Amino acid sequence: MKTRLKGNALIGQSGGPTVVINQSLVGAVQEALRHPEIRRIYGAVHGIQGTLGQDFIDLKAEKPSTLELVRHTPSAALGSVRKKPSEAECEEIFKVFRAHDIRYFFYIGGNDSAETASIIARLAEKNGYELRVCHLPKTIDNDLLVTDHCPGYGSAARFVALALMGDNLDNRALKGIKIDVIMGRHAGFLTAAAGLGRRDEDDGPHLIYVPEVPFSIDSFLSDVDENMKKHGRCIAAVSEGIQDAQKRPVLQAIGGQGEKDSHGNVALSGTGALGDFLAQQVRDVLGVSRVRADTFGYLQRSFPTVVSDIDAREAREAAVYGVRQMTKGGSSSASVAIRRLGRGKKKSGYASECFLTPLETVAKNTRGLDPGFIAPSGKDITADFVKYALPLVGKLPEMGRLRRKPVPKKSL
Amino acid sequence: MKTRLKGNALIGQSGGPTVVINQSLVGAVQEALRHPEIRRIYGAVHGIQGTLGQDFIDLKAEKPSTLELVRHTPSAALGSVRKKPSEAECEEIFKVFRAHDIRYFFYIGGNDSAETASIIARLAEKNGYELRVCHLPKTIDNDLLVTDHCPGYGSAARFVALALMGDNLDNRALKGIKIDVIMGRHAGFLTAAAGLGRRDEDDGPHLIYVPEVPFSIDSFLSDVDENMKKHGRCIAAVSEGIQDAQKRPVLQAIGGQGEKDSHGNVALSGTGALGDFLAQQVRDVLGVSRVRADTFGYLQRSFPTVVSDIDAREAREAAVYGVRQMTKGGSSSASVAIRRLGRGKKKSGYASECFLTPLETVAKNTRGLDPGFIAPSGKDITADFVKYALPLVGKLPEMGRLRRKPVPKKSL
Repeated sequence: MKTRLKGNALIGQSGGPTVVINQSLVGAVQEALRHPEIRRIYGAVHGIQGTLGQDFIDLKAEKPSTLELVRHTPSAALGSVRKKPSEAECEEIFKVFRAHDIRYFFYIGGNDSAETASIIARLAEKNGYELRVCHLPKTIDNDLLVTDHCPGYGSAARFVALALMGDNLDNRALKGIKIDVIMGRHAGFLTAAAGLGRRDEDDGPHLIYVPEVPFSIDSFLSDVDENMKKHGRCIAAVSEGIQDAQKRPVLQAIGGQGEKDSHGNVALSGTGALGDFLAQQVRDVLGVSRVRADTFGYLQRSFPTVVSDIDAREAREAAVYGVRQMTKGGSSSASVAIRRLGRGKKKSGYASECFLTPLETVAKNTRGLDPGFIAPSGKDITADFVKYALPLVGKLPEMGRLRRKPVPKKSL
Repeated sequence: MKTRLKGNALIGQSGGPTVVINQSLVGAVQEALRHPEIRRIYGAVHGIQGTLGQDFIDLKAEKPSTLELVRHTPSAALGSVRKKPSEAECEEIFKVFRAHDIRYFFYIGGNDSAETASIIARLAEKNGYELRVCHLPKTIDNDLLVTDHCPGYGSAARFVALALMGDNLDNRALKGIKIDVIMGRHAGFLTAAAGLGRRDEDDGPHLIYVPEVPFSIDSFLSDVDENMKKHGRCIAAVSEGIQDAQKRPVLQAIGGQGEKDSHGNVALSGTGALGDFLAQQVRDVLGVSRVRADTFGYLQRSFPTVVSDIDAREAREAAVYGVRQMTKGGSSSASVAIRRLGRGKKKSGYASECFLTPLETVAKNTRGLDPGFIAPSGKDITADFVKYALPLVGKLPEMGRLRRKPVPKKSL
């Protein structure tokens, strides 16, 4: 058995919150409490930002009942951040780690967070400072490499699937054209979830546009027109990140807001501009009167009570697994990933396990929808996507529908 | 005992759907099935529109299991409509009623629907046709006169309260300014529900703007600025129907979309224009960088699984009560209203009962928030509103919060 690395642990949360990111936080804390070589358990307030300012809190001072409640609470209880530290800031971070004897660093986030974790791990190695850095995956975009899927996705996808189930019924009751704009910069996983609740042939969304397929406004208008003729109504689920053939975000092309974060990403959420633009195009060109656009915005990622049980469990398990692996010392730095298992003995037909992957394999790039998840038409998902995603969102409620036996008309 | 009026019943749904409007539909059908004098039970597809076209379905032909499932399904299972029939159309409706021996008419909707019901009832009386017309209340706006509150409101208010609870945590994790635009043309009840989930002194929404209070962009900007200075963040809940001092909707003043329904109402929902306008004002004038706007749109009224139990029960009970009263013949036409009872023996401290009110008392006007529900500042709600609304939305989940005991900083 290897010598145990004694010292303090630091946990941080980064990037966009999810409804299960606190499952990872509390999972890491509760597991760390079982390992005596981890002396103190600190939380970094607002991630790397708080680390730079030594803005740490003592997570051992939290009551177990508080931790249990936080575990089921949406958004990042430690505070989050969108920041990529500079070289100089990374040097500063090491001074802080050394001063506080931080030997375990758990960073919960997406690929930007994995990159931050990777930079810190490399600096530690270069400086001969023994540090175990573990990236815990979290993103509603589901765009991390290596892993089958990401904690946070299942619950956000559940929100989107439920929203479209309701919207389909709303649009059937008061017909017209409805455009729903869903989060997702490069990856269409969340937008694709719009189709998970469909049951009947005429159920919406009738069109699904993801960033992986070049978007053409002319095709969009003719697609909508075709569905209006077929169903007398049309719901289109559109990713906020849809791009034209030149890979330029449509939102940017129409002059949407231009805020940028420190990773250079233009803000796509928090504005209704894309939906309003598409709705106006439909009004102007197709001349349809009842056209509405909803932009789901931040509701998708932090709505209390809309949680996938499997997602919540996996978010916790990934963190527990990460702490166990780091204390074992099998690897000095890694990212936790999830592997889907064969059907096994579980009735649900779904099982998964965690494994470690080098930080570098997750940090650099992201992935989009598998080509097999996108219908050949480029405006819908496939049965393979439903098979992939449905276990992650959990059981969706059954919707009732009247058979509507017509009453014979009378002559007046 | 009076002679029982024998004949057929017609049920219709009107106006914007809710998640519990099918509770009223199925409640009416299930109760009507118990009264042998009601021979056939027809559903009008898309309300008055379907009535004009004799587009009726046979609700007795629906399986009991289908009805039970529909009861728990959001949106209007019969289809809905926004239409105020003309005089000529009302004459047409009578030909249809006579031809189908319709003697009971149940119309589920808001005050526009009550007005339609009222017109039809008057025409029946004038023509000496025995008809019992019952308006069953339904509106997420909660703006009907006479009744304490309206079926549909509690569940939509629950959605808004939960959304803001999540958004408060999201905004605490990644600070900035957040503007949430909530449905409500003239009445601020739904927007006011944004404040129902607050617990701690610094919880958002920090500002609540309702249509009942004239909106000034300058005051808004200084309110936001003040909260940024106090909390380092700010969430403003804004009704889509906010009006300037000249009673002109702000959305209209800034050139929002101009669709109108047959009641002459300009469409305020289905566009992000108001939120985007306010966000841009904040950026331009206050120079804050992270400003986001979400417009909740149609999610508020048809999201499956977000349902208030009390709201669902009352939506059903109002319909059952309406059918019983009409078959009793105590009144030939009326609207069902809800009265709140004293605490009684119920532990929850909430109980209610139904009563009848003349159609005319509900049809003409609407009400807004009681003055006692709006804080003197004009930008928040009062404890009295919370006391009024909280029982209607049901128990809200408890959110966890770390106590955040600081770790002493070290010299580097």
